Amino acid sequence: MFELLDILGTMAFAVSGALTAMNKKMDPFGVLIIAFVTSVGGGTLRDVLIGRTPVGWMMNLNYVYIITAGFVLALIFRKKLDRFRTSMFLFDTIGLGVFTLIGLEKGLEKGLEPPICIALGTMTACFGGVIRDILCGEVPVIFRKEIYATICIVGGVFFFFLKSIKIPEDLIYLFTSVLIIAIRLMAVIFKWSLPTVEKV
Amino acid sequence: MFELLDILGTMAFAVSGALTAMNKKMDPFGVLIIAFVTSVGGGTLRDVLIGRTPVGWMMNLNYVYIITAGFVLALIFRKKLDRFRTSMFLFDTIGLGVFTLIGLEKGLEKGLEPPICIALGTMTACFGGVIRDILCGEVPVIFRKEIYATICIVGGVFFFFLKSIKIPEDLIYLFTSVLIIAIRLMAVIFKWSLPTVEKV
Amino acid sequence: MFELLDILGTMAFAVSGALTAMNKKMDPFGVLIIAFVTSVGGGTLRDVLIGRTPVGWMMNLNYVYIITAGFVLALIFRKKLDRFRTSMFLFDTIGLGVFTLIGLEKGLEKGLEPPICIALGTMTACFGGVIRDILCGEVPVIFRKEIYATICIVGGVFFFFLKSIKIPEDLIYLFTSVLIIAIRLMAVIFKWSLPTVEKV
Repeated sequence: MFELLDILGTMAFAVSGALTAMNKKMDPFGVLIIAFVTSVGGGTLRDVLIGRTPVGWMMNLNYVYIITAGFVLALIFRKKLDRFRTSMFLFDTIGLGVFTLIGLEKGLEKGLEPPICIALGTMTACFGGVIRDILCGEVPVIFRKEIYATICIVGGVFFFFLKSIKIPEDLIYLFTSVLIIAIRLMAVIFKWSLPTVEKV
Repeated sequence: MFELLDILGTMAFAVSGALTAMNKKMDPFGVLIIAFVTSVGGGTLRDVLIGRTPVGWMMNLNYVYIITAGFVLALIFRKKLDRFRTSMFLFDTIGLGVFTLIGLEKGLEKGLEPPICIALGTMTACFGGVIRDILCGEVPVIFRKEIYATICIVGGVFFFFLKSIKIPEDLIYLFTSVLIIAIRLMAVIFKWSLPTVEKV
Repeated sequence: MFELLDILGTMAFAVSGALTAMNKKMDPFGVLIIAFVTSVGGGTLRDVLIGRTPVGWMMNLNYVYIITAGFVLALIFRKKLDRFRTSMFLFDTIGLGVFTLIGLEKGLEKGLEPPICIALGTMTACFGGVIRDILCGEVPVIFRKEIYATICIVGGVFFFFLKSIKIPEDLIYLFTSVLIIAIRLMAVIFKWSLPTVEKV
């Protein structure tokens, strides 16, 4: 189950990366790289910072296959993707939840403190998009508009709250991902965003 | 003493990052991330390149607290920070000296050659600002105007010169940081900068 | 022989980085850093991702000397480099071949699967240029125009094909680098490039 969600999330991130790159009129190689980086960039940064090398996607070819499939799908359906907008958004939201949990888990495995684990969860879910934006020459969108990252942080805090009241492991994972997905859906429905901070 | 200086430097770098991000009209999450990256980015890159993982700030929550404090201060006083310009500049200069020394030290611990250690010292002090500028969509300022990095290199060379004439460890640290801080102050007072190199 | 080619490639990459930086009117420190990053950036990223730390250039001062020499040459001859355009292009092409092979080799040493090794070869040869372009505030050129990366991928596939039919090691290296260099020359002579992918 968890694995299936990981696949859906990975593919959704790959498609979103491919679309951004196609909007920038990159060539197919550029599109593939951006798809790849959007998908595994967050987890790769996390693995490098905690010293889990060779990084995750190098040890499991499935990621290469899933991302390549996402790239091919995006290429074929690039003129019709608007029709799949809702499914894409759902998969992307699943990715947000699953990737946050994976990041939290890897931090715990290394014995790191809760605030660091929350940072790792947020990084896993959000930094693929940050690297995508930088490679495309944009100021990362999560620094400006979406509350994407804030949702991961809230999810992470909730995760450690559940842990502290000794709820069974499985339920912690379930509840945390449901919370993340629910907030993300509401955020989009009700158009929540953080105000920008201006100096003057 | 050294630890106090490290705290002052870390906080000054966090505030400078937060200010840059606020000038770019980022949301609070973006401002926090840029503050964080400006503070620990150089040391993180250093740790990753020499294989000291999990990287420094993950093993010591104090950095998280100091940077968060810097972020909150920058947020609250954002309209009045001009008044603290001189203190800010002093703390930033202290950070430059302390971070260079920390980088030199980590390189020596790994048994690396002097030129590599000097590169690590410069990286620790300067690359937080480089990553900040890239995340904000700017060409890094130290590649264009300030002699910031050159000061770290001069400090590093001086450090190994003192080491070669067998001066006691403590004095080497003291003299090197005084030299770095003194050059930086003079550079700003006398408006030193490197000429740009043009191709034609 | 292989070592001589590595030196020529490293220097060509350093000079190309220095030229890009000078076109951006950076100061000498900026030019040096960009020369450095263009040369060793791809290999550094590879080493960090597979956990080969301290990264390659930190363990061998020759890279520091070669790159510094390339930087000095680019500085001195910056107004006359057009005359050396053909030699520069040849050295750069040699670098492409040699760096791809080095990346493939490091992947095999770590026991990684062929597709991952091909990714590592491509990364070693191409990502120095990607980091150079990002530091200079450009969308990386290999995502937009040149078939640079595609050549490395083709070379990598050919390498594993030769391996599978049990050709002696030395000849595999020779044939693969000749293929990469030949395609690159033809690509430039016949002006090959990938079409861009547009969304609408």
